[in-house]
Amino acid sequence: MLLVEDLRGLAAHVGDGASERATHGEDLTYHAPHEPDAVVYPDSTAEVARVLAYANDRGIPVVPFGAGTSLEGHVIPTHGGISLDLTRLAHVEIHPGDLSATAGAGATRGALNRRAGEHGLQFPVDPGADATLGGMAATNASGTTTVRYGGMRAHVLGLEVVLADGTVLQTGSRAFKTSAGYHLTSLFVGSEGTLGVITELVLRLHGIPEYAIAARATFPDLDAAVRAAVAIVGSGVAITRVELLDALTLRALNRYKESSYAEAPSLFLEFAGTQAGVTGEVQAAGEICAAEDSLSFEFEREEEARNRLWEARHHAAFALAASAPPGFKFKATDVCVPLSELPGAVRHARGLVEERGIDASIIGHVGDGNYHVGFSVDPADGDAIAAAERVNHEIVEYALARGGTCTGEHGIGLGKVGYLEQEHGDLVPVMRGIKRLLDPKGILNPGKILPA
Amino acid sequence: MLLVEDLRGLAAHVGDGASERATHGEDLTYHAPHEPDAVVYPDSTAEVARVLAYANDRGIPVVPFGAGTSLEGHVIPTHGGISLDLTRLAHVEIHPGDLSATAGAGATRGALNRRAGEHGLQFPVDPGADATLGGMAATNASGTTTVRYGGMRAHVLGLEVVLADGTVLQTGSRAFKTSAGYHLTSLFVGSEGTLGVITELVLRLHGIPEYAIAARATFPDLDAAVRAAVAIVGSGVAITRVELLDALTLRALNRYKESSYAEAPSLFLEFAGTQAGVTGEVQAAGEICAAEDSLSFEFEREEEARNRLWEARHHAAFALAASAPPGFKFKATDVCVPLSELPGAVRHARGLVEERGIDASIIGHVGDGNYHVGFSVDPADGDAIAAAERVNHEIVEYALARGGTCTGEHGIGLGKVGYLEQEHGDLVPVMRGIKRLLDPKGILNPGKILPA
Repeated sequence: MLLVEDLRGLAAHVGDGASERATHGEDLTYHAPHEPDAVVYPDSTAEVARVLAYANDRGIPVVPFGAGTSLEGHVIPTHGGISLDLTRLAHVEIHPGDLSATAGAGATRGALNRRAGEHGLQFPVDPGADATLGGMAATNASGTTTVRYGGMRAHVLGLEVVLADGTVLQTGSRAFKTSAGYHLTSLFVGSEGTLGVITELVLRLHGIPEYAIAARATFPDLDAAVRAAVAIVGSGVAITRVELLDALTLRALNRYKESSYAEAPSLFLEFAGTQAGVTGEVQAAGEICAAEDSLSFEFEREEEARNRLWEARHHAAFALAASAPPGFKFKATDVCVPLSELPGAVRHARGLVEERGIDASIIGHVGDGNYHVGFSVDPADGDAIAAAERVNHEIVEYALARGGTCTGEHGIGLGKVGYLEQEHGDLVPVMRGIKRLLDPKGILNPGKILPA
Repeated sequence: MLLVEDLRGLAAHVGDGASERATHGEDLTYHAPHEPDAVVYPDSTAEVARVLAYANDRGIPVVPFGAGTSLEGHVIPTHGGISLDLTRLAHVEIHPGDLSATAGAGATRGALNRRAGEHGLQFPVDPGADATLGGMAATNASGTTTVRYGGMRAHVLGLEVVLADGTVLQTGSRAFKTSAGYHLTSLFVGSEGTLGVITELVLRLHGIPEYAIAARATFPDLDAAVRAAVAIVGSGVAITRVELLDALTLRALNRYKESSYAEAPSLFLEFAGTQAGVTGEVQAAGEICAAEDSLSFEFEREEEARNRLWEARHHAAFALAASAPPGFKFKATDVCVPLSELPGAVRHARGLVEERGIDASIIGHVGDGNYHVGFSVDPADGDAIAAAERVNHEIVEYALARGGTCTGEHGIGLGKVGYLEQEHGDLVPVMRGIKRLLDPKGILNPGKILPA
């Protein structure tokens, strides 16, 4: 095939085998797969630049690909063309004296954390999946630790980005702060591969606190659990994680993990710092929970037990998905609402899935107002897909009517293009202008964020 | 005057008196003043939009103005035209259940904190001056608490922005997180009035911790002080402030405030949380300082003593400025470097001002790698200005050669237009493209950030 021949002249690793095209044609969700014509695995920024310049000249679509864990179809090459698999750009360099690291776009957060850990440091952004750092920046990923540390945008100090025409840019610096001109770093973070291809990142690291405790608190109802979480966050306690799980999610989790967590609205909490500090903060949090009539408040001091708790929380999202028949794919809603609207939003969502007879988990990054309804769908079943879309639609409508957003952390991708117009219709012309400025031929991840 | 007549048809409060034109023609620095032709004090976003549409039609420059505390000449109408004084847009609404607030661009951080405090909440971004929130967003201000809470970009959830042609945009939402399309909020934050006029902000608030301690640690040399600070930040202790003052700065401060702080390289620290937590963290920090051979480590537990300490730190920046003859104006350098480069950078800067015989204070947001050399200059003395510029130039060169930035928090304004090209020459064409997209006639704060 001519394209592959050409690409082999530009990069060392190029393929168009059936299996690699299939792998690069889908993500974790039910969004319809579409295969690329070729997959390129660049070894260097120079190769990325050559491939982009070539594709730009010919108007060939290019879709960046990392770990393939995106949840809104971002990595699906709906217009064919080239899947640019960045996983060979996996270098990691820790700068311990700067509390920062330089990493290739294809390095995973797990790899970064293993290297940072050798210096007593951590990269705390935790979306659950072991995603690549480039992919995490492209969707402005966040997750369970955002309440304490912030999401990707708070951690990206600088980026190397290749524009559609092959121009290589360096944004930011290795300094922690900058006010030098328009903050293009923050513009590329969350641009989902539509404005440029991120090839390298300078990332902020944090010390690993000397002591941590996880805790579980159960409540008589969702409202009390959320009130307690907001009060803890509002008290100024430096909580590391505060996650909401509803009763039915814990029931599904217990079935899946053969665990025995109390099946009541629950907060999973983590505190980290010095031992004395954590002890004080846990006590304060326990008092806040008691004031909201908590039914229980239990600790996990040992690292193994803490890890079990957070593994359970992570698996909660997939507990029902995992028990689905083979071939079923994942669906996760991702609205984020003002904190005061969260109890109502979670109740609304639970009512909705019960009414439709859908087995769904509901988990919330309650300190951020962001929650997910997760369930599984047979991608071949048009009625099931339509039903999933209706649930998602009603949840988004509810959030937008209450000052929220259609996506807290998964991004627009394919799945929320229409909602972007609904939520930010006034901003779409500006976004289109920026897209035209940086990618005038529209080769970068066409069809994502903005309609083609 | 025709302009003023026209403007009076568009807004209720318009003036062109000599005094108000002079006030709106300068900032705190030695940048040459230039008066606007008229000052408009809008009462509403609608008035801002009408004035901008009028100015855009006629190509009249518009320069937003807040508290006038900018440090790089941002608010000086170098091309004349309209100074848009936003201080009448001073409304503040606290959303305690959401840990957020909505504020007019002209509300000050002091006003917001007074209102937030009624609910046990705070807006922690503290650049020293009681700046307006719109101005703080426009320069991406940060300050002493950034090490714990982040700067403005971390706190702005949404903006109301009026474009040059009068179009009103709403970015973001009242939710804490969003991944909905390109993050225009982060683009307008730090755009210094050159891309749009910020009229309203949705801001994140934090709980006021129940207990706080300030501490002062002195060290045998700068390096030890900076190493201790980096170790404290890297330990995962949730420190609220960690400020570096060099020996000569403390000497000047003692003269100015009649205080008796030890005249040695010092860290001023603050810890906040629960009483038990703070006690643990202070102990850990004290041990880290002792490991760096600290000469002393003293606490201030009482609120009054803590306030005195932070007032002293704030005044340190202005201590020498305040003792200068009348008419002298302020100069502050603002580079930010990777943490490991900070001791060398501060030593280099102190050597430089000593060599030139300049009485300068040197203070550093040491947890961020950002430090300021502050001194006073007679704006009528061309040689003194040239000498100040040379000092600034050498400090910027030093920082850029070591992976830093020419401005950590003051912005580019007038004073650093050339350094933006030097630091981010590859990005300037993209910045120009964004400027043309949003302000095609170039009426918004011309001459700032990008050369006209």
